[in-house]
Amino acid sequence: MTLSIPKTLEWRKEGFLRILDQTKLPLEKKYLNCKSKEEVWQAIKTLSVRGAPAIGIAAAYGLCVDLVTAEEKKVPFLKSRLLAAAQYLKTARPTAVNLFWAVDRMIHVSETFKHDDAALYQETLLKEALSIHMEDQMICETIGLTGSHFIKNGMNILTHCNAGAFATGGNGTALSVLYQAKKEGKQFTVYVDETRPLLQGSRITAFELTEAEIDTVLICDNMAGYLMKKGVIHLIITGADRIARNGDSANKIGTYTLAKMASQFHIPFYIAAPSSTFDLNTSSEDEIEIEERPKTEVTHFKGMPVSPSNVRVYNPAFDVTESSLIRGFFTEKGFIQPPFNVNIPKILGLRKKHHH
Amino acid sequence: MTLSIPKTLEWRKEGFLRILDQTKLPLEKKYLNCKSKEEVWQAIKTLSVRGAPAIGIAAAYGLCVDLVTAEEKKVPFLKSRLLAAAQYLKTARPTAVNLFWAVDRMIHVSETFKHDDAALYQETLLKEALSIHMEDQMICETIGLTGSHFIKNGMNILTHCNAGAFATGGNGTALSVLYQAKKEGKQFTVYVDETRPLLQGSRITAFELTEAEIDTVLICDNMAGYLMKKGVIHLIITGADRIARNGDSANKIGTYTLAKMASQFHIPFYIAAPSSTFDLNTSSEDEIEIEERPKTEVTHFKGMPVSPSNVRVYNPAFDVTESSLIRGFFTEKGFIQPPFNVNIPKILGLRKKHHH
Repeated sequence: MTLSIPKTLEWRKEGFLRILDQTKLPLEKKYLNCKSKEEVWQAIKTLSVRGAPAIGIAAAYGLCVDLVTAEEKKVPFLKSRLLAAAQYLKTARPTAVNLFWAVDRMIHVSETFKHDDAALYQETLLKEALSIHMEDQMICETIGLTGSHFIKNGMNILTHCNAGAFATGGNGTALSVLYQAKKEGKQFTVYVDETRPLLQGSRITAFELTEAEIDTVLICDNMAGYLMKKGVIHLIITGADRIARNGDSANKIGTYTLAKMASQFHIPFYIAAPSSTFDLNTSSEDEIEIEERPKTEVTHFKGMPVSPSNVRVYNPAFDVTESSLIRGFFTEKGFIQPPFNVNIPKILGLRKKHHH
Repeated sequence: MTLSIPKTLEWRKEGFLRILDQTKLPLEKKYLNCKSKEEVWQAIKTLSVRGAPAIGIAAAYGLCVDLVTAEEKKVPFLKSRLLAAAQYLKTARPTAVNLFWAVDRMIHVSETFKHDDAALYQETLLKEALSIHMEDQMICETIGLTGSHFIKNGMNILTHCNAGAFATGGNGTALSVLYQAKKEGKQFTVYVDETRPLLQGSRITAFELTEAEIDTVLICDNMAGYLMKKGVIHLIITGADRIARNGDSANKIGTYTLAKMASQFHIPFYIAAPSSTFDLNTSSEDEIEIEERPKTEVTHFKGMPVSPSNVRVYNPAFDVTESSLIRGFFTEKGFIQPPFNVNIPKILGLRKKHHH
């Protein structure tokens, strides 16, 4: 069974990067053909491409786009040009760890290139960008395979925010599990929280799932608990932004309430995430800082106010779900079940990272 | 201390009902002059007027508007016209028990009217509608007095949807408690759920509370649970649309999740409601029918789509909070605490109503 899963990022052999502009979704499927590093920078900056892995891949391709447009085809010139473009692209989203990681990986390949064949240099760099992209696709696929085992015929599955093809170079994390189950011919329904305030659920997840012809029901975030009480929801799966050593998981605001409610009704709650989301330097929830976002995300809709201008707002981007509420993690290295303190380091083979 | 609290409903002596169009808040303070039963029906249906008591009052006035427009001024004709209008207006919001209650009260006055003076008949019916309105104002005041005892200095109080001046003929139910506490000089902060999909919290409650100079923090519905976990919320108070004999309470979708989460953290959850919201003919949750509302409330914002057009939607207007999650009811007849099966009939002095 072939699913129609939109391609967020595509390297075109003509020598440019094609990006599906997510800011136009779901009204318009508009593609941006990025033929200069400036256009790639702009696409990252304005959230036309979003999601940590997707941003990293876009930046890696952005360096390749810049090499294509170079007027002088000599290796030393191209190398210094790549360094300049790398510095420039890093400024598009200064807090995106994957952006730095991907760009640094490209720099490393550039620096270790020892020939004077400019065409080979360009080809080598492009291969690295394609590898970063393909590795992410493989990780997504494998997360999907890990989790699809848990999806049974007739299930109603709840998800929150967007952990899908639009956030990664592949089929996503939480949604990859659903795509895989669909490919296996399983029949199920996905309830999608609209995910206030930015509506990633209604704008992006509902779009992805309906495009893939998965039966999808959109709800407001405040309806999920009642559906659980009514016995409608059989399983919950979300992505994560950061997972501590003990399994405490930061994800889009609203995730915690889903997990806590699920525990009341013995509904299994799972997180799908690549091993790169686990941070063994963070021992637990107490060390996770919650980013607060602008007030206007809540008080305005497309620039129009929906609340009195003088009201105060609390707008945390994330909340943290304590590990005791999580039944397990779907990763590219397999399923991780409790006790997480033991199994997370064991299965992921991770050591503490040392920050420089 | 005088608070600035807006007027939702007003009978105009020219013979029509003036309604503050709540769908336009907070951007515009636009009034609807309803001069036919169809305009009143429409105002109720489209939520220009909303909130259980306010709907009842609007419907009672709607019957008077219809009498004003009657072409034949004879009592038997007017009586049968009133019955027809009553049936019609009841279809505007099938879950609203106050709508039925107010309309039935008008029918009762009509049926017991024994003269043949058409002008007196109209006057008698209008007096009844005005009484329903004034009684509601008194009821709101008394509910406020019942509940304000529970509001302490320094508390953070969470509310959902709008159970304020815009939901009633007076100062509201849940918000009347807060207004009363404010009048008594207590200092507290109110966290307001924005209340998707129609944003009554951000549009109306936040508007009312900031107008009354009460310290107000607007949040998205999916943030409330996390605030409870963090120990920020000390008390929750909401209104109700329908309360069963055992205390099970239907209120705006999202209320149940708040109550269930609150019970996990031993945060007291109260409902403020007039005795007319209690329906002793409904023994429990199982007998409460949940109104489903149009898909476009979730998929669109001010006519603009925010989700793919082909997605299915589940959009229940209400959910039901089981009585075990409710610490007590603030009513105009005093505070009702468990066991509700005993105390609801005892304190309200209600008997089962017989439907015709």
